Amino acid sequence: MSNEILLRQDAGGIATLTLNAPASFNALSNAMLAALQSEIARLHTDTSIRVVILRGAGKAFCAGHDLREMQAARAAPDQGRAAFTALFAHCAKVMQALQALPQPTIAQVHGIATAAGCQLAASCDLITAAPGTRFGVNGINIGLFCSTPMVALARKIPPAVAFEMLATGAFIDATRAYEIGLINRLTTPETLEAETQALAETLAAKLPEALHMGKAAFRDTQTLDTAEAYARASATMVENILLPDTDEGITAFLEKRKPNWA
Amino acid sequence: MSNEILLRQDAGGIATLTLNAPASFNALSNAMLAALQSEIARLHTDTSIRVVILRGAGKAFCAGHDLREMQAARAAPDQGRAAFTALFAHCAKVMQALQALPQPTIAQVHGIATAAGCQLAASCDLITAAPGTRFGVNGINIGLFCSTPMVALARKIPPAVAFEMLATGAFIDATRAYEIGLINRLTTPETLEAETQALAETLAAKLPEALHMGKAAFRDTQTLDTAEAYARASATMVENILLPDTDEGITAFLEKRKPNWA
Amino acid sequence: MSNEILLRQDAGGIATLTLNAPASFNALSNAMLAALQSEIARLHTDTSIRVVILRGAGKAFCAGHDLREMQAARAAPDQGRAAFTALFAHCAKVMQALQALPQPTIAQVHGIATAAGCQLAASCDLITAAPGTRFGVNGINIGLFCSTPMVALARKIPPAVAFEMLATGAFIDATRAYEIGLINRLTTPETLEAETQALAETLAAKLPEALHMGKAAFRDTQTLDTAEAYARASATMVENILLPDTDEGITAFLEKRKPNWA
Repeated sequence: MSNEILLRQDAGGIATLTLNAPASFNALSNAMLAALQSEIARLHTDTSIRVVILRGAGKAFCAGHDLREMQAARAAPDQGRAAFTALFAHCAKVMQALQALPQPTIAQVHGIATAAGCQLAASCDLITAAPGTRFGVNGINIGLFCSTPMVALARKIPPAVAFEMLATGAFIDATRAYEIGLINRLTTPETLEAETQALAETLAAKLPEALHMGKAAFRDTQTLDTAEAYARASATMVENILLPDTDEGITAFLEKRKPNWA
Repeated sequence: MSNEILLRQDAGGIATLTLNAPASFNALSNAMLAALQSEIARLHTDTSIRVVILRGAGKAFCAGHDLREMQAARAAPDQGRAAFTALFAHCAKVMQALQALPQPTIAQVHGIATAAGCQLAASCDLITAAPGTRFGVNGINIGLFCSTPMVALARKIPPAVAFEMLATGAFIDATRAYEIGLINRLTTPETLEAETQALAETLAAKLPEALHMGKAAFRDTQTLDTAEAYARASATMVENILLPDTDEGITAFLEKRKPNWA
Repeated sequence: MSNEILLRQDAGGIATLTLNAPASFNALSNAMLAALQSEIARLHTDTSIRVVILRGAGKAFCAGHDLREMQAARAAPDQGRAAFTALFAHCAKVMQALQALPQPTIAQVHGIATAAGCQLAASCDLITAAPGTRFGVNGINIGLFCSTPMVALARKIPPAVAFEMLATGAFIDATRAYEIGLINRLTTPETLEAETQALAETLAAKLPEALHMGKAAFRDTQTLDTAEAYARASATMVENILLPDTDEGITAFLEKRKPNWA
């Protein structure tokens, strides 16, 4: 098991995925992307899982694409055009599948999250990290502007901060990342795992159907205008409140007791 | 007067609406929503009013929907579907009418603003609050993801912060709310009313037509692309600068005197 | 040269434009807008320039439109309608041309950046400033809501902060502007120029084609939904990685040496 590129451990309704290629700082090689895609597809329909944690083995969360693998693709007659096209399409598909998981997702980030590794973190719903952890979209330093990582990152932080990171390659520390809303919990290095676990347990205690409906409404309303967003969200509210477990949840609250959920 | 569910006091061109159901933490019952709708409609065409303040009587600003009233609706043959559909449509209509008021609006928040109460605050243009005041969209704790409150909240704060609040039910304090741009003035509990009043007086001293035009342009341009937004905003600038009072305002500035506005 | 309304100095691939009408706090008169438009058009195709710095001579960066010139336009038979329409169209065109420059742009702001001056700063990719420098869209104080400056500003900061500035005329200090992501580097007054220069040199050392492609993708993806944004950004990644200089950049990184770029 520990030789596999992507580890999965389930406990208490929480699936923890660990990128397990520490020698390459958990680079998103074709093999890693395929493993992620496959596991995300499994999680998508796994009703026993209520929350997903994504983390990296070794010194860092994830350092982005596998540069050696990418350079090798240039040997093809088309200089790699077909391979690169396939790689970025694959990567974008994995990132969007991660965002589309019905369960809430948490990136537990340590060390660095750079380039497509920063994209992977930003594609999770929530991020936890400790001061000293650094986030960057620094491909520009080697001549490759992080255009695809930008899609995930620029939807989460102020545009001028995103552009500075993209154009200068500068990293931001977890402290600044918290200030601007990129990360959700600023922990200490020692408590990162425990605080992430506690956050996951909080989420796992919620009504899964309500979280699924709400997460879908959250995603769908982001690009709608206000009137359309209210129509979409109101429909979700009606379906949500008609769930028997929500009836029980509200009744329990009014009776000052814990809900009796399945 | 003090038995009414919604109080209104006008002074100096400032209308102060007070949610007056302190026993239910000013819950947005059908009666409260109807009272708000009616008063907002009146304010919409009341040219004597330049600014609207919204606040709550008792210990809190507003704790959201009236859960007892909602649970009672389940007794209907359709388990309440029609009533819930009507309720969320009504609530969304009131929130959008509040946003559409030509006058600037300020939510003066104390205690808590939760669920639809947080939505109500976020539907005002500006928010004032003191540290210790807490904002939450915590319906998930009773099995009801705050999808409609999300519409108003998620347009004002970074998405990862919004999602955390929605999915975990966690509150944020006014201090963090200020940091991320949700609230405009961080006061002390003792100076909340006076500072809100001062902010309202500042707004009441501006040229109302200019505020109305500008507020409409602000709302209309938010979902346009840059070129369209500039076309829309430029048209407003032309109409605004051609107002005789704006002519007087600019002339007065150049002559280093106060404008002689009606 | 020093009598000209807009100065340009080139060094090391960095063009520094200096608004040079200090007596009017570098007001955006018709002459200033024309000079900016002309210089921006030249820069657009000047492949020797990798970064553009914009700054102001004298006590302030820029105080916005030229109010005396605007008031004079009212003498026309149409009360200035045609002139105002042309002015705001011209200004919006210049601001969008600035945003559309292929090179990264930095506004080096000191003193104040108000009204269209704040718009000019916000139309640059990055802003540097020191505490004590103030940003405002304060036209409302003279009866003219800053609708066009709003377009540039409201895309960079939280909406409630933008609305407060627009509706109250209140300034924000560079410290708060940094906190909310409007400015990128908080310097001291003494180090403003040197730190801006260092930031420009960092950008000038990157591969220009990669910056150009990335900046275009950044702009184009902002209003797309996630799937469309990934399609747009993935196409850019493919073109970027196929650049010979990017091949060299990645190879150099893997060989732990500096890239041998032209």
